[in-house]
Amino acid sequence: MSAPLFGCIEAGGTKFVLGVARGPDSVLRTGRIPTTTPDETIAAAIAFFAHAAEAEGPFDAIGIASFGPVELDRTAPGWGHITQTPKAHWSGADIAGPFARAFACPVGFDTDVNGAILAEFLWGAAKGCDVATYVTIGTGIGGGLLIDGRPVHGARHPEMGHFLPRRHPDDTEFAGCCPFHGDCLEGLASGPAIMARWGASLSDLPADHPGHAIIAGYLAQLVIAQRALLSPRRIILGGGVMGTPGLIDRVRAQAEQLGGGYFEGADIDRLVVAPGLGDQAGLLGALALAQGAG
Amino acid sequence: MSAPLFGCIEAGGTKFVLGVARGPDSVLRTGRIPTTTPDETIAAAIAFFAHAAEAEGPFDAIGIASFGPVELDRTAPGWGHITQTPKAHWSGADIAGPFARAFACPVGFDTDVNGAILAEFLWGAAKGCDVATYVTIGTGIGGGLLIDGRPVHGARHPEMGHFLPRRHPDDTEFAGCCPFHGDCLEGLASGPAIMARWGASLSDLPADHPGHAIIAGYLAQLVIAQRALLSPRRIILGGGVMGTPGLIDRVRAQAEQLGGGYFEGADIDRLVVAPGLGDQAGLLGALALAQGAG
Repeated sequence: MSAPLFGCIEAGGTKFVLGVARGPDSVLRTGRIPTTTPDETIAAAIAFFAHAAEAEGPFDAIGIASFGPVELDRTAPGWGHITQTPKAHWSGADIAGPFARAFACPVGFDTDVNGAILAEFLWGAAKGCDVATYVTIGTGIGGGLLIDGRPVHGARHPEMGHFLPRRHPDDTEFAGCCPFHGDCLEGLASGPAIMARWGASLSDLPADHPGHAIIAGYLAQLVIAQRALLSPRRIILGGGVMGTPGLIDRVRAQAEQLGGGYFEGADIDRLVVAPGLGDQAGLLGALALAQGAG
Repeated sequence: MSAPLFGCIEAGGTKFVLGVARGPDSVLRTGRIPTTTPDETIAAAIAFFAHAAEAEGPFDAIGIASFGPVELDRTAPGWGHITQTPKAHWSGADIAGPFARAFACPVGFDTDVNGAILAEFLWGAAKGCDVATYVTIGTGIGGGLLIDGRPVHGARHPEMGHFLPRRHPDDTEFAGCCPFHGDCLEGLASGPAIMARWGASLSDLPADHPGHAIIAGYLAQLVIAQRALLSPRRIILGGGVMGTPGLIDRVRAQAEQLGGGYFEGADIDRLVVAPGLGDQAGLLGALALAQGAG
């Protein structure tokens, strides 16, 4: 008798990453689909899974780790939908429903970052951590929060990119690029915000460019805000911007300085870490959500 | 057969408030002891409870909601102790141990604000809220976080007063009074910080004094940080400073403005509220901790 079969969807604003897996060490096939319109993208994803099901058999569950904001309340009519997003075509799009109907199986649905922190808790860098977060710094900035092994939703779900940091004294000209807040964290430290100020990605800026310290300072403020509000045991920093060499060490150093020796209980090098699952955190997040579905 | 008997201790930096209760609606007696040295204060509290036990019988459990920072890890040798505090005599003081030994019963121990949010969840303004916080703004600023009915500890416990807000443009002269961070939230918006800048408590300042908007702005930033990081359904603001007429409405208005319409899922008047238990949140927090002990 085979292990259960899971369909895994990392639904991103640029691409959908798909996987068929029996477990984290048994990913049978993967695929990628560009994110265009909901109809087109979801139809292509359903075709991928239908093809896989012909070979592997029916799915026991499907997990979707989605870009947001999304409706996570299973009792709401809009459960499994994107809510309001500046991304064209996707406001109000039903993500979970089409897969549930096509494959007649339970669907686990959460934010991409809640999926990622769940996967990191099960198999990666947050094992054994009762309070842990996963923050992705890329096209946008988002954060997932896990308490006692369960993703936190609350009134909607955390939106850590919209935290309001103090402005760096050498970064007062740029208004920030968030359409809602201007200079929230996402408006100041996301990939597009970096590109808008300096015309290059952080990893392409010279090592002595002030942008390195400025971006690290904003991310360090999120670390401090998390320590003050959540007392996490692990803060995982992922996403494309974190691929910049030396950035995580700069974040740690500035967070230590900002903390002023106050926050006990977690050494900074063990508190602030890179994803243990690397680029797989997203897809394995969807797997974790599938395993928890139904 | 009587309901169980609980000893309740709200251990504050200025006074210990004591209670003997069989439930939230059955508080049999209360007392107050000034907080002097650990030996003196704890001996007086034990005498109070010993006297009560002669009349009411033995305690089934004792709950302690303490000022902090405290050690909450029950497996740590320092469990139930104050850790490092600027308060003279109290660094390293064992709070829970003397009561456990004197009354040979289970002792529940947590921060004062974690106790308060637990009591508000059970009997007050946070009923039914899966993510809820209680913030006290007084001599210090502290915040407790409850997820699915359980106080969050993590690496130590939240220390929300040490969140770093943006400076108000009309409040750039005052350096802040936190010995660790200078101008963290506690350094800017606690009672002593208000007194240090303006020579009066917030409630004694004229209605048109700029201090009202300044303090409301700092507290509104904590509201936004909580919405971004936690997505709470309820944020309860208590403590002496919140007794200032109109302050909670100013906090709500500034939080709405700062949020820029982004945060869905909770109406501001239902999100940000006064304690449902009023001044009783502290002592009833200790009762809730006692009920959960053992």
